[in-house]
Amino acid sequence: MSGVLRVEIVTVGTELLLGDVEDGNGGWLSRRLASLGAVVTRRTTVGDDDAAIRAAVGDALARAAVVVCTGGLGPTEDDRTREAVAAIYGWPLRRDAAVLETVRERLAAHGVEMTAGNAKQAEVPEGADVLQNAGGTAPGLILEGEPGTTILLPGVPREMKAMFDARVAPYLVARGAAGAPVRSRTLRTCGIAESTLADKLAGLEAEIAPLGLAYLPGAEGVDLRLTSWALRERAAAVRLATAERRIRERVGRWVYGRDDADLAAAVGERLRAAGWMLAVAESCTGGLLGKRLTDAAGASGYFTAGFTSYADAAKTRLLGVPTDLIRRHGAVSGPVAARMAQGARRRARTEAALSITGIAGPSGGSADKPVGTTWIALAVPGRTAVRRYLLPGDRAEIRARAAQAALHFLWARLGDPAAERDR
Amino acid sequence: MSGVLRVEIVTVGTELLLGDVEDGNGGWLSRRLASLGAVVTRRTTVGDDDAAIRAAVGDALARAAVVVCTGGLGPTEDDRTREAVAAIYGWPLRRDAAVLETVRERLAAHGVEMTAGNAKQAEVPEGADVLQNAGGTAPGLILEGEPGTTILLPGVPREMKAMFDARVAPYLVARGAAGAPVRSRTLRTCGIAESTLADKLAGLEAEIAPLGLAYLPGAEGVDLRLTSWALRERAAAVRLATAERRIRERVGRWVYGRDDADLAAAVGERLRAAGWMLAVAESCTGGLLGKRLTDAAGASGYFTAGFTSYADAAKTRLLGVPTDLIRRHGAVSGPVAARMAQGARRRARTEAALSITGIAGPSGGSADKPVGTTWIALAVPGRTAVRRYLLPGDRAEIRARAAQAALHFLWARLGDPAAERDR
Repeated sequence: MSGVLRVEIVTVGTELLLGDVEDGNGGWLSRRLASLGAVVTRRTTVGDDDAAIRAAVGDALARAAVVVCTGGLGPTEDDRTREAVAAIYGWPLRRDAAVLETVRERLAAHGVEMTAGNAKQAEVPEGADVLQNAGGTAPGLILEGEPGTTILLPGVPREMKAMFDARVAPYLVARGAAGAPVRSRTLRTCGIAESTLADKLAGLEAEIAPLGLAYLPGAEGVDLRLTSWALRERAAAVRLATAERRIRERVGRWVYGRDDADLAAAVGERLRAAGWMLAVAESCTGGLLGKRLTDAAGASGYFTAGFTSYADAAKTRLLGVPTDLIRRHGAVSGPVAARMAQGARRRARTEAALSITGIAGPSGGSADKPVGTTWIALAVPGRTAVRRYLLPGDRAEIRARAAQAALHFLWARLGDPAAERDR
Repeated sequence: MSGVLRVEIVTVGTELLLGDVEDGNGGWLSRRLASLGAVVTRRTTVGDDDAAIRAAVGDALARAAVVVCTGGLGPTEDDRTREAVAAIYGWPLRRDAAVLETVRERLAAHGVEMTAGNAKQAEVPEGADVLQNAGGTAPGLILEGEPGTTILLPGVPREMKAMFDARVAPYLVARGAAGAPVRSRTLRTCGIAESTLADKLAGLEAEIAPLGLAYLPGAEGVDLRLTSWALRERAAAVRLATAERRIRERVGRWVYGRDDADLAAAVGERLRAAGWMLAVAESCTGGLLGKRLTDAAGASGYFTAGFTSYADAAKTRLLGVPTDLIRRHGAVSGPVAARMAQGARRRARTEAALSITGIAGPSGGSADKPVGTTWIALAVPGRTAVRRYLLPGDRAEIRARAAQAALHFLWARLGDPAAERDR
């Protein structure tokens, strides 16, 4: 471990210690630090309390070269981190004119007056380097001195992450973090069960050792994570590429992307390639499918419009589904799903349309249509295909799985038009 | 704080320290311990490493009366917790015949042969109490002696939770943990900045002591969390009620609910009370507002339909917004927002309609319409009101804030029709 940069993480917040808020920052920082080649040796959480913060950061500095600390830099009385850590170094606080001006400008842009609390945020320990916060009022700080290096970051995840990537990562690399980073690669699958995947990949673990393989199932499908632990960068890259190729040889038709790939974005790429515009018609998902499709910027290149026909009457009024069709088959049925997709396609004048109608629960199920029953239709030029699904989980999970299944239906169809068929 | 049981939590697992797995056990234990009246003073995470575990648990025992530790009790080589903690007490491991038999039976029931690793799970520190594991092979352990009490629980969340509730909770209550449970109450606000809230609540901290007050800002607004630390149950209830009343006296018009209240559900209640049905027209949020309104079951009692007019042409086709209005004012403008809401209200035949049109970024902004510029309109019988917002954050956060602002617009209007006005 010689030459390796040892780092500890301290997250501050009484809400974390009470379990009211999950400590997402701790996990995110752990991943980022590992990817930089730093070795995280301990993570500590303490409340908004001077003595506790001082003890935790002080203890961590006695063990590690660098301590990364988040939270407790805000404008209110219970934000104690700045003072507690300055006391470890014996540095007084001074008001930083540049920080004060930045805080004032930021608040003014949002039409908010500066308060005494905001002014407190401009008090920084003498001798600390200030990291400007592009997304909020709390500046970050780097304290370098006796007894070590402490990096203070805001607790708001978006601000913390932006500041880490822009300022802290380059700083740590300059400090020598870069031995044998843990590297991982995730292949994201959808439309295939975990056990079927495991069957098709039987024996792979031995072939790809010393890489590790983990199956991570969720509402978006099953992720396959490959991890390299102790290999040098070059060797790790070669092994990961080989392992990915072997996985794709066996189950490639279910792999829609790598790492943090999003199926909606993958659908967008295929729509763009096909030169198609898409409309959606939703019932039980209430807008979630449209939301997914527009999560990424640039969605206007392939997404035109969405219709959420939550009430039965809206299915008729917005999409032209005949009332007697709903009466005969029920709102959750193949014929209604098909007419919803056709109506959306016609009214939005798009090449393709997806529809979802289902029973998300917890009530509304019956013996022949239990909670989770979902019909999805895809209308494309000259053809409408429908599929029935029985989705597991609670209301939120059923809705998430329904949106993902609809996206997968279209993604597979755009990838291989001949393979599309009812089932 | 005399008489209060101070507890620290130590979670063990290299996967936690790498950030590959979120530390859900830590948060769960924090909530359970607080509800039992124990005070959790620190949470520590270390990897599967003898020295690190021994140091973390040893340090924790020097500060707290009880240390609850999860993970590292499994059958594989990297499970080190049992040995490391036994060494702190100087207790040798002995093979426990009853545990061995339970492990053998459990494996046999699943048709699995016992391995050497499984047998290792039956080695327990001399002097420790064994907690049988009803859901797995790793037994829990309670070590009571010099230098304190350590409770070892398995890392599998389901097994850990069952064992905690069945055995550890009664043990801690017997140890005196039930004196003064930590109680908290959260008041959720929307539509007011954190610094403005702090100004309006200036001096409140002193008035409500010994309760604590924390400001928790997020995309849904600012939550105000009141916490009672060392008060008996009855006293805590009275103080929390008094503090809530004082907060509501000063900022009650921005408080939409308590604890895990959802603004969309609060809007639903007010719509129900008014006997109104709602439609929405969305652009930049892509369906998110409709999704929020239908998150809860029973939304069909107040939500009829949604129109997502992502393309400009869809604003005209779906909602009847005149093309020349879009040309003159731009798609992101007050007049277009107003016509979107009116179109949705008319076409869905509802009493109320909300619309959102904005620039969620990251591109698409300009000098007079920067990223974050959002117009929201509310059409009700006889009146349409519009508001302009400049929302901070990245694309996801701007969209989340836009949906929340629209919900807040309607919520405030339904609560006090006279107070509604453009701004």
